Parts: sequence; structure tokens; C-alpha cells
Amino acid sequence: MTDDQTPATPTQPTDPTPTRPTLSRRGLFGLAGVGVGAGLVGVAAGVAGDRAVSAATSHTSASTVYPFYGPHQAGITTPAQDRLHFASFDVGDISRDELIELLTDWTVAAARMTTGGSAGTYGPASGPYDAPPDDTGEALDLPASGLTITFGFGPSLFTTAAGVDRFGIASRRPAALVDLPHFQADALVEAQTGGDLCIQACSDDPQVAVHAIRNLSRIAFGRASIRWSQLGFGRTSSTSRSQVTPRNLFGFKDGTANVKSEDTKVVDEHIWANAADGAAWMAGGSYLVARRIRMTIETWDRTALREQENIIGRTKGEGEPLSGGTEFTEPNFAMKGRDDAPIIPVDSHVALSHPDQNDGAVLLRRGYNFVDGNDDLGRLNAGLFFIAFQRDPRTQFIPIQKRLAANDTMNEYVRHVGSGIFAVPAGVTKGSFVGAELFA
Amino acid sequence: MTDDQTPATPTQPTDPTPTRPTLSRRGLFGLAGVGVGAGLVGVAAGVAGDRAVSAATSHTSASTVYPFYGPHQAGITTPAQDRLHFASFDVGDISRDELIELLTDWTVAAARMTTGGSAGTYGPASGPYDAPPDDTGEALDLPASGLTITFGFGPSLFTTAAGVDRFGIASRRPAALVDLPHFQADALVEAQTGGDLCIQACSDDPQVAVHAIRNLSRIAFGRASIRWSQLGFGRTSSTSRSQVTPRNLFGFKDGTANVKSEDTKVVDEHIWANAADGAAWMAGGSYLVARRIRMTIETWDRTALREQENIIGRTKGEGEPLSGGTEFTEPNFAMKGRDDAPIIPVDSHVALSHPDQNDGAVLLRRGYNFVDGNDDLGRLNAGLFFIAFQRDPRTQFIPIQKRLAANDTMNEYVRHVGSGIFAVPAGVTKGSFVGAELFA
Repeated sequence: MTDDQTPATPTQPTDPTPTRPTLSRRGLFGLAGVGVGAGLVGVAAGVAGDRAVSAATSHTSASTVYPFYGPHQAGITTPAQDRLHFASFDVGDISRDELIELLTDWTVAAARMTTGGSAGTYGPASGPYDAPPDDTGEALDLPASGLTITFGFGPSLFTTAAGVDRFGIASRRPAALVDLPHFQADALVEAQTGGDLCIQACSDDPQVAVHAIRNLSRIAFGRASIRWSQLGFGRTSSTSRSQVTPRNLFGFKDGTANVKSEDTKVVDEHIWANAADGAAWMAGGSYLVARRIRMTIETWDRTALREQENIIGRTKGEGEPLSGGTEFTEPNFAMKGRDDAPIIPVDSHVALSHPDQNDGAVLLRRGYNFVDGNDDLGRLNAGLFFIAFQRDPRTQFIPIQKRLAANDTMNEYVRHVGSGIFAVPAGVTKGSFVGAELFA
Repeated sequence: MTDDQTPATPTQPTDPTPTRPTLSRRGLFGLAGVGVGAGLVGVAAGVAGDRAVSAATSHTSASTVYPFYGPHQAGITTPAQDRLHFASFDVGDISRDELIELLTDWTVAAARMTTGGSAGTYGPASGPYDAPPDDTGEALDLPASGLTITFGFGPSLFTTAAGVDRFGIASRRPAALVDLPHFQADALVEAQTGGDLCIQACSDDPQVAVHAIRNLSRIAFGRASIRWSQLGFGRTSSTSRSQVTPRNLFGFKDGTANVKSEDTKVVDEHIWANAADGAAWMAGGSYLVARRIRMTIETWDRTALREQENIIGRTKGEGEPLSGGTEFTEPNFAMKGRDDAPIIPVDSHVALSHPDQNDGAVLLRRGYNFVDGNDDLGRLNAGLFFIAFQRDPRTQFIPIQKRLAANDTMNEYVRHVGSGIFAVPAGVTKGSFVGAELFA
């Protein structure tokens, strides 16, 4: 399979003045007669390489446009943007044809919005004055801001809990789209778990990501409604060597050993589903696991630095393994410290989650930090919204999480309160709709 | 009073490459023996003028540092940054001296963090290894990102509901720090209302704003705890002529007629409290009113464009008054349309809130959009976190809001669910603490 999206290098404006984007929703409307689409902007090839850029400023230019169409959906190997709005949807009592119509409507709107366009033809401020606008308008002056919109299908789309095959697709459910097992100490809240469909909107501007979810939700009115949703900021994993490693709310670098989009061999082998895996319609797709992980940060903040570093298995400053070196030095799990015990504790997060300890299993993580106000005791309702992509959760997320749930010393400071698993189909061909192969 | 902070023009890096900030927390730690403070960076005078910049990119450079010390607190006339974390605190059962100590600790930490430094001397990754770090670390690699931290005192700091003078300051409560009256249709939630103290942290990076509130909350442990808090994005008002007008979640430009920091005469007359106002310790301060305004955006989105524009009194695209012109044209409330009725409806938001209709009363608004997940019906829990600064709420916010609450056709689409009023004292002198004049 050719792959012009991996690594997905953003389109940069040629104008050197960072305050003047080259493309905005408003600008698009001024281009009378010119089609709205990826054709408007060039797509660069190649990768920026390992430029040392600040975590704060490694996000792309506001006018970055990632192509919506392609062999894979964008938002997976795309260098992680800074902001997230994720939504899980319940599909109402509609027919198979109506579901296809919804996916088609979503596809058209997503293709428009990812270029910096409005969700609908008329936009928020023109068209019939006696009808509601077909775009809500809050992103009218904003450029694309690296927006990607990624769609996924949950297990319940294939059959309900009662086994009803609502859309005639039960036989096509991929074996890899399992119901996630109960993990030790799971504290899942039903209202923040599951869902028939999901949409991950990522952008460097939160208003652009929110605008995307809001308009897709508006378009779904009467057909699907939001079951749960999550805003996030400060991505917790770099997915490209052009990005520095960001920090999670434990204050540690997160994602040092993450799969990077430049490692195309690893991505092909461990992230993209393959026709040979059993569900041919998922070829070029991936499986998304989301976990809402609440951190008890007030307790963490009263833990000694030495204890924090032993829990993580890395230093807090540079982020190198406790066995020494620099951030990207491979951890030496055999190195002994005092008492002849491994200097990287065997129950540390880095030891338990390392591929060497998990039969080589890796994940492409793409999570975000969140703070959703505070609880009754004045503690911040904060944590990590974990998102990981993989070829098969049965051999990747599930065994890794089983080990972590049973052994990780970090468990004292985290609580998994939300969860979802979704089959993310391959990219969309122009004129078609997302997931068309499932209904073919 | 001299005023080197208004208009507050940010310090810009001289390096033209936007991806390389000139100052970061890490960088600061590398400057052994060099004091951490505003002296590290120059402060430019003058204003950028009316450059046409995109709303998406009008925020300042990541390395922007606003001075913490000065005649006024930063975060009022400072050009509104893109992100907000606001927190209201309840003070525990502590003494007057302990309250002063808390304010002193907060002042020291805020002064450090606004320069891009850590909250404490040792930072997150050094110091005694067997003690908790004195900074939580998630902003370790991030530059100052235009962070401002603004402190305020609520009515309940002066006396509790039972009239107890906890801190010996009851006699010094400013007359302008009234308890807000009940406004028609108020739907206030007690848990999102009031508070003894408030902190407004604004930055162009949400992780930097969150880091500030989190560390100030950590420092307050055992003395004060968060009562309610709010994250926001996509500022809803421009406070400087160097900024374009952003859009709220109704999709309309918000803040076209806002007080701008460049209008120093208006700011002096209507925003800064004066010794002659009655409470001499508040001279150079201001009064902050916060309102959490939930928007029923799904209902709004199904309203005809014509109706939306009649409710606002402006067009949705350009934002000019319905009486014509461009965005900054003064509305003509006398102009008649069909049926000989005013073309700008008398019950529109712009008509009711215009200074001409409110005895010249103005506000310096500094609000943010918010989306806090969704409710049980799948509707986004979204709206506007309104923040306004003023010299005297009795003649500014209160009469304006009374008229709006009684007459505004927008009320069908908004619900005020949270509220707070705080006396924001003048700026801090080096070596002193915020609000020192109150306790002198």
C-alpha cells in the first residue's frame, strides 16, 4: 500500500509572518468558483527531522491543513496536535440506510472543516435567512489549525447487548474489536464508557476542535447523540520525531518510547490492520482504545521526588531511565543498584510497559491531559485521557494493561473511570464515505 | 498615578523563528546566579496599533512575559490571552497572620511562575529527594506563554454569612464589594458561586494556566481549598486594539465595543478604583464579576439566522450593527426599518447593553468560552464564562445586568448558573504581597 500520509508533514504557509495565516474559513468563501478541498493547498512530503523545538511551540502553524482523504484516516500518525475534543455517540433507532446517510453527511462536513471550511455549504452567515445556518460560526475567522477528524465504530454498532443486529453488520465485526475485559481496580463509570461511534477531533486551537464536534453532533441530530465527551490539552505523547516529548500531569515526560510515525516499518506492522487479520474491510484501519484516567494529583504532589521517580522508572527532569543516559537511552533493566535490586524497579511503569516485557507489543499513544473543574473536596478533577492506536488490542493494549493493572505502583495514584474501544476504518476515497467498505 | 502597564505590550523575542522561545523554565534553571524576575526580560512600551491579525494567531509569542509587579495587577488590561483557568477558594479556619502568610506565599510563587519559573525554589526535579518537589513539573519545559495571575478578595473574606469578622477586616470592606443581587431568571448553583478568594490565571498555553492554579492550590493546602474552578478557551473579548474580535459559542463576534486598554482615559475613569471611592486600600485595584453562563447551544443552532441576528443586533458574519456599516461602526438605534420599528430591535443584546442605554456605564470584559463535557441528554455543557472588571459594580455590572435579565431576548438561550464578585487589589510592590494595603 502506498502511503502519502505517513509521516504526515503539515503544509506550511510560505508567508514568514506568523500572524497572517494563508487560509481561513473567511478566505475560502472569498474564493468564488474554486472548489473547497485538499487541492487548494499543497501537501509536502518528507519529515522535518529531529529539529529541537520547544514543547510549547512545536505545534504546527495555524494554517496547517492535513489531507482528509487518503489511505488512512488522519489523526493517527499525524503529529499529535495540542488540543482534543473526543466524543462517543449512541446511534438512535435508525435504519441501515440512515446510518450510511449519517456517515456520508459526516464525511462531507469533516472534509470541509479539515480544510478550514464551514461544516455546510452556506456557512454560518449566509444562505436562507429564515433557516438555521448550516454552520455554527464560532470558527468562522479561524484557520484550519491542523484539524483532523477521525471516526471509529464501537462493538455495540455491530450488535447490541441483547444481540440485536441493528444494521446487518454483525457478521462483519472484526475479531480484534473485542469487548474490553474488566481490569483489576477498574472503576468505570457507565456514562463515560462505550458508545456506538466515536469522533476524535484534534487541532492546535481548541475552538476549532470544539467547532468540529459541535457541528458533527448538530448534523447527527435525531440520528445519533453524544454519549460522553472529553476535552484535552497538552498532548501527552509525541508521535513524530519532529516533536519534543510533552509532560503529563504527574509532571513527567510521557511518550518517550512511543511509536513514531517515521518508523514506518513499526507502524505498518503494529498499528495498521491488515486484510489478512480477518476483517478485510478494516485493512488500512486501526483500533482505538480510550481510557479516562483520573489522577489523584494532590496525593501525588505530596509524594517524595525519589518515590515519584521510582514509580515512573525515569528521572523527572530530563526523563532518562534510572539506569542512566539521556531521555532516549534504552533502559537497562538488568542494572543493579543498592541491595542488589534492579535500579529500575521491576514494578515501575517503564519496566512493566516496556515492549521487552510485553512480547514486543507496542502502542501508538495519542493521549491528552485534562482538567474538568474540581470535586467537592476542592481536588482538581484531572488526569490523562489515554488514546492508543494498534493493529490488534488482543495482543497489544489488553495484555499490557493487564500487567499494569496488576502490578504498577502507579495504580495508587490513578483510577480508570472511562473506557472505549473502536474500530477505526481506513481512510476515505473522494466521493465515498468513512467506513464504506463495512457496508459494501 | 503613573502606569507602565497600560497598555501592556508584551515582550517579544527578537528571534524571528517562532518555534524557538527565548525563555523557558528549563532555560531559567540554567542561568546559575542570575535572579529570576522581570529584570531578565525587557518590557516594551507602546502598542502594536491596529494591525489586522487573525483571531487564531493574535495571541502573543510563547515567550511573552508580562511583568508581575506594577501599579496594577496584570491580567486586567493585559491583552486577553487565549486560555483561562479560574479558581475560587474557601479559606479554612486560619488566623489573620496565617492568611497574610498564604497571600505572601502565593505572591512569591506567582511572581516566579509569571516569568516562566517554577513555583518553588527547587522546582520539580531537584532539591531534597526525600521530600515532595516544590513544583509539580508539568510546565517544566514550557515558556511563560504570557501567563498572568490575578488575585481577588470575595465579600465572605470580610465577614461570613453569620457576620463573623474572621480576619479583622470587616470595617475595611469596600462599599463597592456588594453582595450581588438576585437577577431575574438567575439559576445559580451554590457550588459554583461565591468564594473567599479568587485567582484568575490566563496564558496562551492551557498547561501553563493549569500549572499555575494547581501549584497555588497545592501551596494553599491546609489553609484554603478550591471551591469551584473553570477552564476556558478562545477569549470572548478583545481588550486591546492589537487584537481582532473573537467569537463566542453563539458564533458571533463578542467584545466589539469592549473597553480597550489603549483607551487610558476610559480605563482610568471606569476600570480602576480610586482612593476617593471610599476604600483607600483599593486604589489602583478593580472589581471582578464572574458569571458562568450556560448556553443552550443546541436550541440556538436550530434558530433561523435572521432571528439570531435580531437577538444580537448585529450581523453574524462581519459583526456590523443591523443599522449598517462595518464592525466598528456605531449602532444607530434611531434608524427605522419596516413597520417603522427600529432596525436594531430594542430588546436586542446590543441595544440593551450599549453604554448609551446605561447612563454611559461600561465594563472591561475578559470572558472565555467553555465546554465541560455534556449532559445526560447528549447536549454540550457549553457557554461563556463571563469576567468583567470595573470601578464600581453598583453603577456598572449590576444595572446593566438588571436590564439584560429583564428584557434581553437572548435569555431564552442562556442560563446564569455560577457567579462571583471579588475586590482585586492594586498591583504588588517587590518585597510585599498582594493586598498588603488591606492589612496595613
